[in-house]
Amino acid sequence: MSCNIPKTENKRVVIVGGGFGGLKIARKLVKSNYQVVLVDKNNYHHFPPLIYQVASSGIEPSNIAFPFRKIFQKRKNFYFRLAEVTGILPQEKAIVTTIGNISYDYLVLAAGTTTNFFGNQQIQAKAMPMKTLTEAMGLRNVLLQRLEQALVCANPQERQALLNVVIVGGGATGVEIAGALSEMKNFILPKDYPDLPNSLMNIYLIESQPRLLAAMSQKSSDNVLKYLRSMGVNVLLNQRVNDYRDGVALINDGSTIATQTLIWVTGVMAQQVENMPAEVISRGGRIVVDAYNQVKGMENVYCIGDQCIMPQVDMQWEQGHPQLAQVAIQQGTLLAKNLKRMAKGKPLKPFKYKNLGTMATVGRNKAVAEFAGMKMGGFMAWVMWLVVHLRSILGVRNKFIVFINWMINYFNYSQSLRLILWARNENK
Amino acid sequence: MSCNIPKTENKRVVIVGGGFGGLKIARKLVKSNYQVVLVDKNNYHHFPPLIYQVASSGIEPSNIAFPFRKIFQKRKNFYFRLAEVTGILPQEKAIVTTIGNISYDYLVLAAGTTTNFFGNQQIQAKAMPMKTLTEAMGLRNVLLQRLEQALVCANPQERQALLNVVIVGGGATGVEIAGALSEMKNFILPKDYPDLPNSLMNIYLIESQPRLLAAMSQKSSDNVLKYLRSMGVNVLLNQRVNDYRDGVALINDGSTIATQTLIWVTGVMAQQVENMPAEVISRGGRIVVDAYNQVKGMENVYCIGDQCIMPQVDMQWEQGHPQLAQVAIQQGTLLAKNLKRMAKGKPLKPFKYKNLGTMATVGRNKAVAEFAGMKMGGFMAWVMWLVVHLRSILGVRNKFIVFINWMINYFNYSQSLRLILWARNENK
Repeated sequence: MSCNIPKTENKRVVIVGGGFGGLKIARKLVKSNYQVVLVDKNNYHHFPPLIYQVASSGIEPSNIAFPFRKIFQKRKNFYFRLAEVTGILPQEKAIVTTIGNISYDYLVLAAGTTTNFFGNQQIQAKAMPMKTLTEAMGLRNVLLQRLEQALVCANPQERQALLNVVIVGGGATGVEIAGALSEMKNFILPKDYPDLPNSLMNIYLIESQPRLLAAMSQKSSDNVLKYLRSMGVNVLLNQRVNDYRDGVALINDGSTIATQTLIWVTGVMAQQVENMPAEVISRGGRIVVDAYNQVKGMENVYCIGDQCIMPQVDMQWEQGHPQLAQVAIQQGTLLAKNLKRMAKGKPLKPFKYKNLGTMATVGRNKAVAEFAGMKMGGFMAWVMWLVVHLRSILGVRNKFIVFINWMINYFNYSQSLRLILWARNENK
Repeated sequence: MSCNIPKTENKRVVIVGGGFGGLKIARKLVKSNYQVVLVDKNNYHHFPPLIYQVASSGIEPSNIAFPFRKIFQKRKNFYFRLAEVTGILPQEKAIVTTIGNISYDYLVLAAGTTTNFFGNQQIQAKAMPMKTLTEAMGLRNVLLQRLEQALVCANPQERQALLNVVIVGGGATGVEIAGALSEMKNFILPKDYPDLPNSLMNIYLIESQPRLLAAMSQKSSDNVLKYLRSMGVNVLLNQRVNDYRDGVALINDGSTIATQTLIWVTGVMAQQVENMPAEVISRGGRIVVDAYNQVKGMENVYCIGDQCIMPQVDMQWEQGHPQLAQVAIQQGTLLAKNLKRMAKGKPLKPFKYKNLGTMATVGRNKAVAEFAGMKMGGFMAWVMWLVVHLRSILGVRNKFIVFINWMINYFNYSQSLRLILWARNENK
């Protein structure tokens, strides 16, 4: 195999990963003099903030995913390659991928993070992570299968384990999937499964910190806790899931929860690249960069977004920025500008993060948002959440379809997307 | 496990399979005095005539699939069970399923057909059938992967095998997928894969009969052949694929085609039920029924749709009816009526097939249709095809979204559904 990308006079920028950061820099560079090569292990960009709605059958994967080839249709000197990047050969200025080596003039690592199982093999093998669309679709199938299985289960203990859902991690993703599943329990189950008492379905949300949404204010944490409890979610704070064996989650206070569905959304780890010098790897596997997102001591190698850490640059974020979409987007935008300035021999600009606010939603009319010192809750925050997320989804058609789906959901709580659907994977 | 369906005073009708026939009889019976139990191995009804558009990334599976639980929401004395039916125990009046035995007062077999590989293990293992949504999604993923693989393939022979698509079977499904893939080749490839000459992609359609669409008139066959050839499809008539080994399809004239994508849409076989008496099984595994869809010699056991054959009843269809949606729907409707008449002690009515016409589409503005002696081709047939199929899709939301998708496709030939997406299937 060969990457089959022609060498031209134009210097080549290879971007690894087409998430928020990688997509942004690729879009900003395609009209430049650089040859742009985007490498991703999926053939689409997706929108992680709404992935929990895919898992809970609220929207379709295609509504929050956009094929890279469609995004970059008609672009000159742009190449997309579907491949996994395994390592780097800095001496040869090349990356090692599943389709062979790809050489670069400038390398931009933007591969993001992966789920961190903290070394627990049992949990890694059996828990359901929810970071990719593949995982979200798998989780959707499993959630629906559990209900069908519970219905025909003759043993009450086994049935309870099929109906207990344990969500580990009280960050935005954990809070949002807990809210969505509780709406499913309260509004879908009684209609779709009249012979399965919905009171039997228990949703647990387990967080090791003393509060949910630790990245937001105490007030937002309190609001979210109140919302979730009012919706019937069992929120356990200051608790940890230490192990998961034979369908039983072991909590660190010694208690146990029997469950066939353990959703693992606590902690991430930066994607690893073989051959990176050990001294540039910081906590969580993040790659240390300077104020220009250049990897420490590596010429022409950059890293942006969740995969990198930029300590001791901005006093406000001395320990590094939070791993959020906004950071990745702003770093991608700046690095594109800096690469263009570099080509013209102009001085580079250092990164300065502009915090545009954070938000999380729990259910209809229930959300929290923090902007420029303002803290909001309830209906207003929820409407703001809808608008911000709708605006951020790529493509007019997708915006439109997600909007329709949300409206249908809002007025009758009842989508028709609850298909258990696997893709036949022989002959891969 | 246990099916957990309460015994009531109402007699129980167990329906196996929720395709066109099974869904129709279930819907007609839910307002009756019968207890209705619908058993299907999927949790959704789907619309096979558009499955080829799922495979070719034209529409989403959720647009042509509807969860049974959603269809039957709020129905009294109705039970859906997700299970595979393996056999029958006529003495005990029960069926054997993956969730245990289910007893019946009346049994309606409506399980349809499965792909017939005519005993060829090689073909069964490696060819891609296209009868289920699972298969269509798998095929979509594979078709898109082949293009990505071809792009980075260094060996011209291997690349050609990745770009050759061989479709075996020139019935409606084969004709429609050939047309859809040829539109993909002509309109999508140049935009999405500018570095992959679309002339390299070859689409072969192989039919063992002397003409395509053998069930329609010679005129329609001629029209379809003309359309497909004008779109660049290599149609081979009077040919058969005898084997498929190591990525090479062997044609019966001794020639070979190297291909990594062999789509197998020729011939079907009725779903088999263990313990059925040998004398009721006819050609293609179809179960012989009388004019009331009762299985020969089996009390209270009925079979409708593609799974059954009703010979020597209607002179026009002496050899049995064609395996079409309309036959299944009309048989489902009549059997529901007859079961209600039976409950009232009224005499039953024999089945008489009303041919509402047949149609097939090849691409935009290109279709053939035959109604009541009329034969149409081209744009008018295509518009009629659109209207008939849109009307038949369940659900206002689905109709609407499919319509939008078709309009977008019509005006810019370019969907954004080309995601290679598998569902993570650990922890099943």
